[in-house]
Amino acid sequence: MKGGASSHCDIVVRNSLARGMLAEMAGTFILVLFVDGGLAQGVVSGWTSGTPVSTSLTTGMGVAFGIYTSIGISGGHVNPSITIGLASVGKFAWRRVPLWITAQLIGALAAAAVVFGIYYPAIENLDGGNRTVFGPTGTGVIFCTYPQPYLGVWVGLVEQILNTGLLLHCTMMFFDERNGKPTKGMEPFFVGLSVAVIILAWGHNAGAPMNPARDLAGRFLSWLVGYGSEVWMPYKAHWWLVSTFVPLAGGICGAYFYVLFVKRHHPGNLAQDYQKVQRSPPADELGTSHTVCQTELDDIL
Amino acid sequence: MKGGASSHCDIVVRNSLARGMLAEMAGTFILVLFVDGGLAQGVVSGWTSGTPVSTSLTTGMGVAFGIYTSIGISGGHVNPSITIGLASVGKFAWRRVPLWITAQLIGALAAAAVVFGIYYPAIENLDGGNRTVFGPTGTGVIFCTYPQPYLGVWVGLVEQILNTGLLLHCTMMFFDERNGKPTKGMEPFFVGLSVAVIILAWGHNAGAPMNPARDLAGRFLSWLVGYGSEVWMPYKAHWWLVSTFVPLAGGICGAYFYVLFVKRHHPGNLAQDYQKVQRSPPADELGTSHTVCQTELDDIL
Amino acid sequence: MKGGASSHCDIVVRNSLARGMLAEMAGTFILVLFVDGGLAQGVVSGWTSGTPVSTSLTTGMGVAFGIYTSIGISGGHVNPSITIGLASVGKFAWRRVPLWITAQLIGALAAAAVVFGIYYPAIENLDGGNRTVFGPTGTGVIFCTYPQPYLGVWVGLVEQILNTGLLLHCTMMFFDERNGKPTKGMEPFFVGLSVAVIILAWGHNAGAPMNPARDLAGRFLSWLVGYGSEVWMPYKAHWWLVSTFVPLAGGICGAYFYVLFVKRHHPGNLAQDYQKVQRSPPADELGTSHTVCQTELDDIL
Amino acid sequence: MKGGASSHCDIVVRNSLARGMLAEMAGTFILVLFVDGGLAQGVVSGWTSGTPVSTSLTTGMGVAFGIYTSIGISGGHVNPSITIGLASVGKFAWRRVPLWITAQLIGALAAAAVVFGIYYPAIENLDGGNRTVFGPTGTGVIFCTYPQPYLGVWVGLVEQILNTGLLLHCTMMFFDERNGKPTKGMEPFFVGLSVAVIILAWGHNAGAPMNPARDLAGRFLSWLVGYGSEVWMPYKAHWWLVSTFVPLAGGICGAYFYVLFVKRHHPGNLAQDYQKVQRSPPADELGTSHTVCQTELDDIL
Repeated sequence: MKGGASSHCDIVVRNSLARGMLAEMAGTFILVLFVDGGLAQGVVSGWTSGTPVSTSLTTGMGVAFGIYTSIGISGGHVNPSITIGLASVGKFAWRRVPLWITAQLIGALAAAAVVFGIYYPAIENLDGGNRTVFGPTGTGVIFCTYPQPYLGVWVGLVEQILNTGLLLHCTMMFFDERNGKPTKGMEPFFVGLSVAVIILAWGHNAGAPMNPARDLAGRFLSWLVGYGSEVWMPYKAHWWLVSTFVPLAGGICGAYFYVLFVKRHHPGNLAQDYQKVQRSPPADELGTSHTVCQTELDDIL
Repeated sequence: MKGGASSHCDIVVRNSLARGMLAEMAGTFILVLFVDGGLAQGVVSGWTSGTPVSTSLTTGMGVAFGIYTSIGISGGHVNPSITIGLASVGKFAWRRVPLWITAQLIGALAAAAVVFGIYYPAIENLDGGNRTVFGPTGTGVIFCTYPQPYLGVWVGLVEQILNTGLLLHCTMMFFDERNGKPTKGMEPFFVGLSVAVIILAWGHNAGAPMNPARDLAGRFLSWLVGYGSEVWMPYKAHWWLVSTFVPLAGGICGAYFYVLFVKRHHPGNLAQDYQKVQRSPPADELGTSHTVCQTELDDIL
Repeated sequence: MKGGASSHCDIVVRNSLARGMLAEMAGTFILVLFVDGGLAQGVVSGWTSGTPVSTSLTTGMGVAFGIYTSIGISGGHVNPSITIGLASVGKFAWRRVPLWITAQLIGALAAAAVVFGIYYPAIENLDGGNRTVFGPTGTGVIFCTYPQPYLGVWVGLVEQILNTGLLLHCTMMFFDERNGKPTKGMEPFFVGLSVAVIILAWGHNAGAPMNPARDLAGRFLSWLVGYGSEVWMPYKAHWWLVSTFVPLAGGICGAYFYVLFVKRHHPGNLAQDYQKVQRSPPADELGTSHTVCQTELDDIL
Repeated sequence: MKGGASSHCDIVVRNSLARGMLAEMAGTFILVLFVDGGLAQGVVSGWTSGTPVSTSLTTGMGVAFGIYTSIGISGGHVNPSITIGLASVGKFAWRRVPLWITAQLIGALAAAAVVFGIYYPAIENLDGGNRTVFGPTGTGVIFCTYPQPYLGVWVGLVEQILNTGLLLHCTMMFFDERNGKPTKGMEPFFVGLSVAVIILAWGHNAGAPMNPARDLAGRFLSWLVGYGSEVWMPYKAHWWLVSTFVPLAGGICGAYFYVLFVKRHHPGNLAQDYQKVQRSPPADELGTSHTVCQTELDDIL
């Protein structure tokens, strides 16, 4: 604390990054414990202790609780698609993106390992040690998503853009102070609720990956513990490329969908809003000249 | 921006209409993605990935998310019955009604097309290309409502008045500042919840259309893509007339039900409240003379 | 409006009673439409369009929506047990009790008739016109509760005291400003949620009547439309006496449970609180002498 | 009231303990009525009136309602794991811990007895008087948790640390004023929701005890009423030791998880925060010197 204002600032920034990564790691850890745990309970019980509604609840509320864990410190992304989607519309600094994603991957991997460890006796009891992704004793779906056999890669790809797009659209709208957003403090719950509902509407074809951290880390973990190369290439080659990278693109699309159809049309909105991370000034501080500026930029865009 | 105050005002009004239509379009698009997606997941999986509760959740929360999308800009109707119901009790300007409904129809049609496209492989896998509304491989129910064979047209008609009436009653009461309404920001969630519960209580007979935009656009889309003329005339002639127009009447009935049984009896309420769109003055500004006026008008009405 | 202050006052009082009854009627009407509608959907579909969770949701949210309908005007009881339970602990004026209950009975009877009318084709389709309470085509459970054959009258009676007691306990605690109550505006939702959960925990033995208005009006209606005398005497004589009158006693017990175990022990609480209807003065207005008084009364009680 | 300030203070302290114990007792009583009642409904109906989702709801909302019962008076623990977990991070006074746990055990035992009494006819109807824990007519799972036959004691032990750890992590984060916590008044609901989701994700292996009061009191009650010594030693010796004592350790782990990964990294946080029970001063009262102090302590810890 001997330094001046600038060095102090450095320390704070460095601390804030470390704190943020720690919180993202913890949040994603919590998220994956619920998501994978809920699926594991369904799978190992032959779907007697789990149902489509129960796994959508564990997944959705896992997301909500992961966000509540870290929202006050790191922004509560717990998902690379959200990190990149928010960065693409200027709501998060690009230079932090790799750090946040690294933390998310570490948290997700640790949680997947814990799920495998604790459900090991149940999985062993089910498949007698013969680990498979599919089939009557297949348990691969606990750790990551797989497409239905009938699903072509292009439709699967478009669906993943839609799914994660819906998630980012909902996330942005639940936090948009100028729209009729949910009561303060309920936003993470609503993001989780939107995940639950996306899974109930768009999860049958390909499991609705949306979170590459959970999907990639879980896939890697299940490959490590002996599920075989099928985890990378189910039915058709390289589904993992779709489930890992397409949600990132989908997140950007969804964020822009909200911006283009709703957000940029708020009265008194400023185009440069999207180029800065800090909160925009409240509407009543916007003078007439700003409004003119906005209208003109709006006309151009 | 060279014009004076009046031309500026014109621009703002025109912009507000365009913004409103854009928001209604986006909101109804989101709504139908969830509603039809949830039903599609249930139907194509033979109801193993979907249940009555799951589809009521996707429908209800689809409505809620559609409202959250557009509430700050267009009022968040995302349903012609709500637009017309609110207009009928003076809560929305009649001249905007056709614009809002047009936007809702466009959004619903686009979403129905997306649902058909993404679920195409699953539908194809189920029915082998032989598209039918009913029967073991029928998938018509994804896109619009159909009555049970035993349901006569008159009871079906009354039920649709009841369903949409309940929706409008609930919508008005959730937003009524003078009653014990839900916490600010939770109203759209509660409207969605009321839709979910209406479907669980009144959806078996005829699917509880309530939203003519979703129903008519979906019916048109399913006819376009080859479900045949049965989409317009299932069992008996012209169910589509009931599912399209009766909810509009039901919405008006429900809005008046709330007004007549609850809203107009608020202490200090003004009868002319119902003839203006802008928010009425707060209760403590109402002088004695106004109260007299109200009592007399109340006695007449 | 020519009269003086006193006659004006009279008019207001009379109006407030009429308004209250109208609101209670509308609220109970809404409640029973959801409760009976949800059960009807389950029964007539052979429990394919309804599940234990779906009917608990329709019932619980029916209660919540009934309360939201009337809370700002009549207090939102929509249930004689709540009216009497609150009156018993001084939270509602006894002289209004018969008026409120009358309104609730009228609303419940009207709703039961609407449910029977709209579900008539489905019931007819199920039982071919041979209306029965029990058996494979029995539909009596739509309109009122019946005990399981194995349930003796005394245990059934104690259970009804427990069920309605839980409801009143929860209702009082959700509205107790001095405890850690839910966010303002969410209380009716929580009362409905408690009803849903009571049904899921205590509904199997005897259906958890809790609302004599719904139960008695529905029983009368089903007797009127031809379900026979079995509606009054299923298995054993006169279950209707238990389902109608025991919830009233249970409500009083539950209200006192909350008062004795929690409410009267709030710091600075006044014993005479329970003898007046109007809201007690805020804690910071209570002088030392009042506190002394309270402590002494507490010691006696 | 003749004494001076100090004796008055004594009386208040003593009263506050008695009030707190009364509230904890009532809260745990309510909690166990819902938890055991929901499971009983599922078991005695052969899981036709109950499902995995319904029992997770009754359990989760039972916890929420138990907390709402007592939160304003005793802090709303209703679970020894929460009492000890909060005490371990300095959020509750150790000297009150035995009193609170005693009250919780009494409330839980009373509720278990009520559940057994009211469900006695149904249990008798199911097993014909031959009370067993497991098997087709086994009903032991109503009152306490049992592990699956395949589950080894060590994995079961680690899972119980995880389960209760998740509960404490969630509880602390839902009440952490400096993180993005839920809306004031919704925290107990969210704690209950986290319990529901933990059961849906981690309840299959061993039932997710988390509350030793409910588990131990229910086990004792079921032994008392004739379920035999199997309640203490199912399959393998002494599961009751795991279900009673491991959640306490898990609670401490979860509380520290939240503190170490999130709470102690709040900007302007004070290390000594964790050594005092009273609420820490608001952030804006913290001077620069305190911040220095914190940074240095942080570096050490």
